[in-house]
Amino acid sequence: MNQIDRTLETPYYAVIFTSVRTAIDEGYVETAEKMVALASEQPGFLGVESVREKGGLGITVSYWKDKESIRNWKNHAVHQQAQQFGRDKWYRSYKIRVAKVEREYGHDI
Amino acid sequence: MNQIDRTLETPYYAVIFTSVRTAIDEGYVETAEKMVALASEQPGFLGVESVREKGGLGITVSYWKDKESIRNWKNHAVHQQAQQFGRDKWYRSYKIRVAKVEREYGHDI
Repeated sequence: MNQIDRTLETPYYAVIFTSVRTAIDEGYVETAEKMVALASEQPGFLGVESVREKGGLGITVSYWKDKESIRNWKNHAVHQQAQQFGRDKWYRSYKIRVAKVEREYGHDI
Repeated sequence: MNQIDRTLETPYYAVIFTSVRTAIDEGYVETAEKMVALASEQPGFLGVESVREKGGLGITVSYWKDKESIRNWKNHAVHQQAQQFGRDKWYRSYKIRVAKVEREYGHDI
């Protein structure tokens, strides 16, 4: 991914997912891509920005209309399965922060 | 940076800074490092997580006690100068989102 999302008017919600990977790659990239595609189809999804340093920290921020949309995506059966694999295999550690975006501003050349 | 911050109890604030760089490197790394060090000394600073893909998207999330701390840091004279260089030289585009973290949870192996 190489773009900054054009999100909507505030307020909306951000889910900040910060993670450190294990050395286990099995199924990781395919699942990560599948989850982005599936999330994009969910009601209330506004966008996602994702960066990972090779072998290091990853930050994925997804944007959502409201907390209900976030809860529904968290509880989605296919996503639940991926979360389980994440805990069991792919992530050494992670943190998820749910935050209400109150203000945004930017700059383009 | 290669760690997930141990932030405090919610609520606190996150500043999500998403950016795409220009090809101009002059002074960038030094200033970026200086800004992280300087931010860390400011009242209300809780932590920072930062990742950039080579030649691609960068996401830096800094965490703050409250909006006043964020405003003070934004208006800090040395930081203001860096922001000006950022707009003039280093960033093709960026977006800043100020968000109130309402909930956090995580997992460690």
